[in-house]
Amino acid sequence: LFALTILGSNSAIPAYGRNPTAQVLQTDDQNFLIDCGEGTQMQLARHKVKRSRISRIFISHLHGDHYFGLIGLLTSMDLMNRTQALHIHAPAELENILQVQMRASGTTMRYPLHFHPLPGDGCIVDEQGIEVHCFPVQHRIPCWGFLFTEKKKPRKVIPARAGSYDIPPQFYEQLQWGKDYVTAKGTIVPNDEVTEAARPPRRYAYCADTLYDEALVEIVRGVDLLYHEATYLKNQEDKAALRYHSTTVQAAQIAQKAAVGQLVIGHFSAKYEHIEPFLEEASVIFPNTMLAIEGICIQIRQEKDT
Amino acid sequence: LFALTILGSNSAIPAYGRNPTAQVLQTDDQNFLIDCGEGTQMQLARHKVKRSRISRIFISHLHGDHYFGLIGLLTSMDLMNRTQALHIHAPAELENILQVQMRASGTTMRYPLHFHPLPGDGCIVDEQGIEVHCFPVQHRIPCWGFLFTEKKKPRKVIPARAGSYDIPPQFYEQLQWGKDYVTAKGTIVPNDEVTEAARPPRRYAYCADTLYDEALVEIVRGVDLLYHEATYLKNQEDKAALRYHSTTVQAAQIAQKAAVGQLVIGHFSAKYEHIEPFLEEASVIFPNTMLAIEGICIQIRQEKDT
Repeated sequence: LFALTILGSNSAIPAYGRNPTAQVLQTDDQNFLIDCGEGTQMQLARHKVKRSRISRIFISHLHGDHYFGLIGLLTSMDLMNRTQALHIHAPAELENILQVQMRASGTTMRYPLHFHPLPGDGCIVDEQGIEVHCFPVQHRIPCWGFLFTEKKKPRKVIPARAGSYDIPPQFYEQLQWGKDYVTAKGTIVPNDEVTEAARPPRRYAYCADTLYDEALVEIVRGVDLLYHEATYLKNQEDKAALRYHSTTVQAAQIAQKAAVGQLVIGHFSAKYEHIEPFLEEASVIFPNTMLAIEGICIQIRQEKDT
Repeated sequence: LFALTILGSNSAIPAYGRNPTAQVLQTDDQNFLIDCGEGTQMQLARHKVKRSRISRIFISHLHGDHYFGLIGLLTSMDLMNRTQALHIHAPAELENILQVQMRASGTTMRYPLHFHPLPGDGCIVDEQGIEVHCFPVQHRIPCWGFLFTEKKKPRKVIPARAGSYDIPPQFYEQLQWGKDYVTAKGTIVPNDEVTEAARPPRRYAYCADTLYDEALVEIVRGVDLLYHEATYLKNQEDKAALRYHSTTVQAAQIAQKAAVGQLVIGHFSAKYEHIEPFLEEASVIFPNTMLAIEGICIQIRQEKDT
């Protein structure tokens, strides 16, 4: 399982029933919540995402439409008797914001809550199955994107073939990690004769709120799914730049230059009632584009073998 | 116009589609927002309450389900180019909570935002048409209720009758304030011969989150509408007391002892999927009870002449 559920995709002001930014990346072991605009806890309930599976929350920056729902979610988790640890990866100032609110209500979370201030860039999570890196993006205030990378999986042993070479099962784990087998007579059995490659690791990049910035191309090159904001349609390029946001066309250009598998665009300005034109404009440049419509779940797949 | 719109009435955790506490008291001149749980700005939009008419916001206490929606609403008002002043009446600590969040996003509200820390009790608003008093209630952290009182309106002159006594129109304003007229011959024309009483002032009391507390009876005596929390059904009286909340029966008893016109109960615990039993239990003791169901608008009326 490596799937992205959209909980909110509006910019700044909730409008036309669209909620501020929040997404959940679901894996076999855990859920990652990415940004947490106001109402995220209601959206989790509406779209039946289990909050008990959320192990880590990533906050890209401290504009309210990306984090005002966090304190409510954390508080509700406590009221619902959560016991497992929760990790928050966010700009350093958020820790104080959470603390002053907990202090005012006399609240101490009864589950272990670990706050990890974001470094400039680099690896912030490295654990069983997954790595997460953060990288800076260009916005009005410090802002980060996140790159989620599955860990390389072991190769699969083909038992019939391994058996035909009399390879003892004790050696299978070494086969899984790519080692050739050498028989008692000194004959080498090449690893790929008796194993097959596991599915290559999948990657998802979340670029948060950002100005059009070609420096992103190298960072997100070849990811299977790219989320890039598209706050405005292409005829608002000046306004987008002024506000450190991007247009449909700019989002699609990053996707194209980076040769990603699929693009999802969101963070639609509240001035637009209808968002279909966003898809039309982006698709001209990068056909495999979709809109971050609330409630959709995108299965992240490798578009091509690597 | 003196009407109460319910935007949210759930306690602690949003559940079963019910939102945390928020209400709007609408008058001819302005709207007052009372508490502001997470999602209030979405609820205002959903129920078509004009946020531009909100002149004052009252926050009863700093449990999150009563104020986590405030910072988002204030921010959106700024993004929507609000220019008119906004007054916040709230526990003193809220000012810092708002400031640290505005600082983190580099936000300065462009409309005048006035913060008024709540005093222990007393008059906090005295202006054209209305007075607002706050009073302490018993909860786990400092918590206030609010009493909204229309100002006494001038009496209405009955022109035909005033004319029959040859009362000059210049004297009408004095008639409106209850003065008798004395003719040139020294005859007294009693005021109530030539005027009629205006509609007596209406009163609404909001008791926030509170333990059952008979001290409230005197404070809310005779109000036209009383909001009293009823977090639990009557069989949970012990749990209610432990958590500084009230039951259906306790809310109704306060209404009965205070001889209020009408009672509205809310702040339903998230453990209840169905809230009809709340109405059944309270109505036994105080028949003129209604549930704080989201979206309803209660016209506050005098039940009896005073």
